[in-house]
Amino acid sequence: MTDGLDDLKDITKRTSKMLFGEPKPGEESGPGAYALWKEFDPELAKHISMFYTGRLYSREVISQKQRELCAVAALTVLDKPRELAIHIGAAMNVGATREEVAEVIFQMATYGGVPTMVEGLRTLKEVLEKRAG
Amino acid sequence: MTDGLDDLKDITKRTSKMLFGEPKPGEESGPGAYALWKEFDPELAKHISMFYTGRLYSREVISQKQRELCAVAALTVLDKPRELAIHIGAAMNVGATREEVAEVIFQMATYGGVPTMVEGLRTLKEVLEKRAG
Amino acid sequence: MTDGLDDLKDITKRTSKMLFGEPKPGEESGPGAYALWKEFDPELAKHISMFYTGRLYSREVISQKQRELCAVAALTVLDKPRELAIHIGAAMNVGATREEVAEVIFQMATYGGVPTMVEGLRTLKEVLEKRAG
Amino acid sequence: MTDGLDDLKDITKRTSKMLFGEPKPGEESGPGAYALWKEFDPELAKHISMFYTGRLYSREVISQKQRELCAVAALTVLDKPRELAIHIGAAMNVGATREEVAEVIFQMATYGGVPTMVEGLRTLKEVLEKRAG
Amino acid sequence: MTDGLDDLKDITKRTSKMLFGEPKPGEESGPGAYALWKEFDPELAKHISMFYTGRLYSREVISQKQRELCAVAALTVLDKPRELAIHIGAAMNVGATREEVAEVIFQMATYGGVPTMVEGLRTLKEVLEKRAG
Amino acid sequence: MTDGLDDLKDITKRTSKMLFGEPKPGEESGPGAYALWKEFDPELAKHISMFYTGRLYSREVISQKQRELCAVAALTVLDKPRELAIHIGAAMNVGATREEVAEVIFQMATYGGVPTMVEGLRTLKEVLEKRAG
Repeated sequence: MTDGLDDLKDITKRTSKMLFGEPKPGEESGPGAYALWKEFDPELAKHISMFYTGRLYSREVISQKQRELCAVAALTVLDKPRELAIHIGAAMNVGATREEVAEVIFQMATYGGVPTMVEGLRTLKEVLEKRAG
Repeated sequence: MTDGLDDLKDITKRTSKMLFGEPKPGEESGPGAYALWKEFDPELAKHISMFYTGRLYSREVISQKQRELCAVAALTVLDKPRELAIHIGAAMNVGATREEVAEVIFQMATYGGVPTMVEGLRTLKEVLEKRAG
Repeated sequence: MTDGLDDLKDITKRTSKMLFGEPKPGEESGPGAYALWKEFDPELAKHISMFYTGRLYSREVISQKQRELCAVAALTVLDKPRELAIHIGAAMNVGATREEVAEVIFQMATYGGVPTMVEGLRTLKEVLEKRAG
Repeated sequence: MTDGLDDLKDITKRTSKMLFGEPKPGEESGPGAYALWKEFDPELAKHISMFYTGRLYSREVISQKQRELCAVAALTVLDKPRELAIHIGAAMNVGATREEVAEVIFQMATYGGVPTMVEGLRTLKEVLEKRAG
Repeated sequence: MTDGLDDLKDITKRTSKMLFGEPKPGEESGPGAYALWKEFDPELAKHISMFYTGRLYSREVISQKQRELCAVAALTVLDKPRELAIHIGAAMNVGATREEVAEVIFQMATYGGVPTMVEGLRTLKEVLEKRAG
Repeated sequence: MTDGLDDLKDITKRTSKMLFGEPKPGEESGPGAYALWKEFDPELAKHISMFYTGRLYSREVISQKQRELCAVAALTVLDKPRELAIHIGAAMNVGATREEVAEVIFQMATYGGVPTMVEGLRTLKEVLEKRAG
């Protein structure tokens, strides 16, 4: 266990910036809704962020694009539209195309049923419109 | 819509063989349990197989390895051990390593919770033992 | 609210017998596992049984066959094999054929995904073998 | 396998019209959101529609009313309000009454819990208001 | 079984008032949406309310605060925001603090995944704002 | 952020011992299946354990008994029998009685449906038999 907490903070920031973009002033970007967590417990919010983003998402066993497409797959079948929108954005930030994201969502009809596929495509469409606009 | 049904049957067989291996005598391999479907309705079973394996899995928008790792992601968070075992096998048949499959399952703690990750690793272990033995 | 508790007990027994069969000596039949509930709280177990079986299942707005096929649909997509087995039996006790039950389960691929359909067919097969044997 | 693709297209259209109504100009009706699928992949969208609507929903092992009430059951416990609204409409288009649909949703408290029943009734109310208005 | 139906009605009312507050004129308070159930079947609605609120929630094996925090836990991982809002309110009505409710929701990341935790905190924030306003 | 990693390791061990008992020789106790995680990635396994057990379960905003009963609630409605068995054990290790655990599981019929309640009671019975034996 060589990482000190300072290293972990740096890794968390770098990974978060790569996936979720530069935090805007007055807003902290990130998976889920980091600002929301902080309202309820800032210390725990940091640990949550450092664990999921710093420890898990920063790993390099699979490519970031592969990782984010798997996140898209999971969040589609779990039908979590807000978190899915964030990870569709992350997938595209690390190189996935619109067609690749759509393909993963279409495939999910098999495992999660057609309604989860439909909701997934709806979320994808909204993300594409926001990024285009 | 250029594919006739004969082409589709061929594509389905080729895709099934690539992902799930050569059918053994007296057994039909495939996703889910094709032999089971056939017991209840052989005609419908063929259409189901041709749709999911022939139409969906044969597509090349993403790589087969990418597709199967997304299947692993979805089936882990949905906690479907039998289907997960089949797609872990498929992922390895198209080039995923044990480390890559484990990585996808570990990541799923984030979206589906720790219990789905634990069950996923348990299934992975069983598949690895069967393939080793 | 005209039903007294005695009437409700009778309705519960009649409905339970119609759906789940005659209780065997030393065993109390019923949905779920009535004997299990009673071990933990006999009084509450009675109220649970009287509510679900007596109040809900006894209603005649839809036919018993319709009701039980809807139970099969729901329990298939929720992937609850033990409860599904009980309601497949109940569906057949009130007149559903093997083909009708299989049809409902096949259709569930649409809403719950292929893995829930496969598990549902597996449960159906086990019920059919037990009833045949 | 006697159906050619042309027959299947016809069956799909007829079944879709029976369940989901006449497509309005500038809009394609259907389960899920056919227009949405087409935006991302028109060829695959056709195959998806032909499989679920043409192959599965057109079957006559159970009555259309029975089939749609089972769809209502599944979509209630899965808590998919948009798809549920479509299949409540379909159930009523093939002869189910408001009371029968409500009955199926009430029953779902047993399998999916009270919150899924409440959300299901809410969706039913919205569909009834739209059909009345 | 000593409770007559009149006793049960009283217990149901008292328990409902303790957890969900005094019904406002022209509105019936309660878990889920009692008024909605009544629109579809007033007699069944009464039995549902008397079973869940009167029989289950009135029990004293665990404290009301304990019971409601468990409801918060379950409804967070099931991702049912409307019902969760009602039981967050109930938990606070029987003595849970904002910090205790938040703690239960944070813990749910473990079992239901981060997205259910995020949605749970969002619902908590909305309830707190409504109660403050 | 005052905890160093050494402190966190201690907190993790103490919390794990309190909840899940003394590790037996040749076996590492803990939530989920710590030994299983370690087979696939020992370093990540440590971080996972330190996050969930060390950071989350060690917190004192709610009592350990309260926390574990909430875990029982969540794992019952999610229908995760292996993880549920572990947390039923933990709940009893920090002072919950058999009646309190059963009560939480009974209540879950409301949110997760009767089948999850039945499976939960079945798991409780198995845990009680193992602890008695």
